[in-house]
Amino acid sequence: MLLKGSNDFISGEKIGSTLFISRAAVCKNISALKKEGYNIESATNKGYLLIDDKDIVNKFELESRLKTEFIGKNCLFYSELTSTNDQAKKIVNENTNIENGTVVITEKQTNGKGRQGRNWVSPEKSGVYFSIILKPNITPMETPQITLITGIAVANAINKITKLKSGIKWPNDVIINGKKVCGILTEMTAEVDKVKYVIVGIGINVNNDKFENIIKDKATSLKIESGINLKRADVIAAVIEEFEVLYKIYADKKDFSLFIDRYKKLCLNMNKQVKAVFKDRQITGTVCDIGQNGQLIIKTSNDTVSIISGEVSLTLKDGKYI
Amino acid sequence: MLLKGSNDFISGEKIGSTLFISRAAVCKNISALKKEGYNIESATNKGYLLIDDKDIVNKFELESRLKTEFIGKNCLFYSELTSTNDQAKKIVNENTNIENGTVVITEKQTNGKGRQGRNWVSPEKSGVYFSIILKPNITPMETPQITLITGIAVANAINKITKLKSGIKWPNDVIINGKKVCGILTEMTAEVDKVKYVIVGIGINVNNDKFENIIKDKATSLKIESGINLKRADVIAAVIEEFEVLYKIYADKKDFSLFIDRYKKLCLNMNKQVKAVFKDRQITGTVCDIGQNGQLIIKTSNDTVSIISGEVSLTLKDGKYI
Repeated sequence: MLLKGSNDFISGEKIGSTLFISRAAVCKNISALKKEGYNIESATNKGYLLIDDKDIVNKFELESRLKTEFIGKNCLFYSELTSTNDQAKKIVNENTNIENGTVVITEKQTNGKGRQGRNWVSPEKSGVYFSIILKPNITPMETPQITLITGIAVANAINKITKLKSGIKWPNDVIINGKKVCGILTEMTAEVDKVKYVIVGIGINVNNDKFENIIKDKATSLKIESGINLKRADVIAAVIEEFEVLYKIYADKKDFSLFIDRYKKLCLNMNKQVKAVFKDRQITGTVCDIGQNGQLIIKTSNDTVSIISGEVSLTLKDGKYI
Repeated sequence: MLLKGSNDFISGEKIGSTLFISRAAVCKNISALKKEGYNIESATNKGYLLIDDKDIVNKFELESRLKTEFIGKNCLFYSELTSTNDQAKKIVNENTNIENGTVVITEKQTNGKGRQGRNWVSPEKSGVYFSIILKPNITPMETPQITLITGIAVANAINKITKLKSGIKWPNDVIINGKKVCGILTEMTAEVDKVKYVIVGIGINVNNDKFENIIKDKATSLKIESGINLKRADVIAAVIEEFEVLYKIYADKKDFSLFIDRYKKLCLNMNKQVKAVFKDRQITGTVCDIGQNGQLIIKTSNDTVSIISGEVSLTLKDGKYI
């Protein structure tokens, strides 16, 4: 009611009668909203006015923005978690009937994680940290394709709401101006030939003002790049909506080749020199294509190599990460 | 002490002084052992005698049998679980530092599971039900190889302790005289290119006297086939020991081709007609080989097909399952 009321005060009496609650209950709820961060002016004989629309992430702010069919219909919000992927794994373990598309969101991760056990710095209320729980009918070998599609969704969402130009470092880092703005960590529980759950964890640096120490030159935020303070709920909603469009196609056709053109347009490695590092060897060459299953195809001096996993280091260009 | 005492009574005084506990405490512990199923005779002025060695599975019976290096060193015993795989998943989720080789065992599963969501009938004290938690440094694509190795370990263990001749129906059913005696359910939690945990669930029908309804013609037990009541702790220990030998080689070399000969010797599908059923198609042909990564290689009338997953139905022979 306060959001819809725009610039007019709404009386406590009107709020109470609309919601069938007492004036005292109205007062109590207004206090709770203020505590959550909403800036509400109270004036005797006039009522309540929402002064400005702050950057608040909660179940209401998200659900009121989402126009999706199933992703985020069940939205689980936490003020603090070790990581949203940890919580999502706990949830699927305890409730095997959890809804496909359930989203786990938090304001702050105390142990945010990147790929292969690395950290993801997750300060309170600066970035967005959420995980999507999916139940696709695929094999473990196909799961990397969901990561690639998530990269497309995040890059598209960022480019739409900020007018920035983000791209993807294969397989799944979203990059703006040579620096990383989003990390995606896809985990699964599976039988050897059948996935039970895929958990897609997404961390995006939104309103961070700066980064410290070793990630200083490698990380950036949407605010640093655009100069604008974004509403984090808008960012989450945009990503989830983009993701649902792509994921519905994928879950239906189970064919990554439908996404190759979209991926290649965003992929910053295309036609670039790369060094691919594996457990026991490394190769250097030029990325010439993305394969039918999302592989990175590298042309070396004497061969063409198709990579399905492993770390890809990029050559530095103008002192930048990519 | 009672086990080592063989046919002599041991006095409560001697037990108490050896263990530094009171006579009353000895008495209380003897009662507890009796409750667990041990048949202990108590005689005034003589002490205690273990009458016969019953079929008891508990932490002590297992640990006293196991001569392994790391598999089963941490042995978690439960009188009842929904399934040992469920419990193992819960454990790795809650304790990421859980020891490699931890074994979860139960006397009874209320929701025992086979592959692809099927049931595994798990009556109390008839079969053995346990899961091994592993942390191999492999990709999700390599995980099926651990299932194949487990099949070898179970078949070898059964053949050693019973003198029966069991074999493997690809990929992982252990069969005696055309009927299934063991099911293996391998599950994992993983990032897209790195396994975190593999949980190998093993269910073996040991002392079951008969099977009901739809599994009547498909299932058998070691007792039905051998006519002998086995000690379930002996079966578990034998499987774990066989498994450790093979798993150590695999974890070290990560090369399934080292196991192809052993697997082929046990594989009941070799040179047999099979029908392989997939999501959307099926093929019929003769199994001609096992591939470098454990694939079933089938020669059809006009092609050679390599199968890495999917259900393989076997042609009936003499009215039997295989």
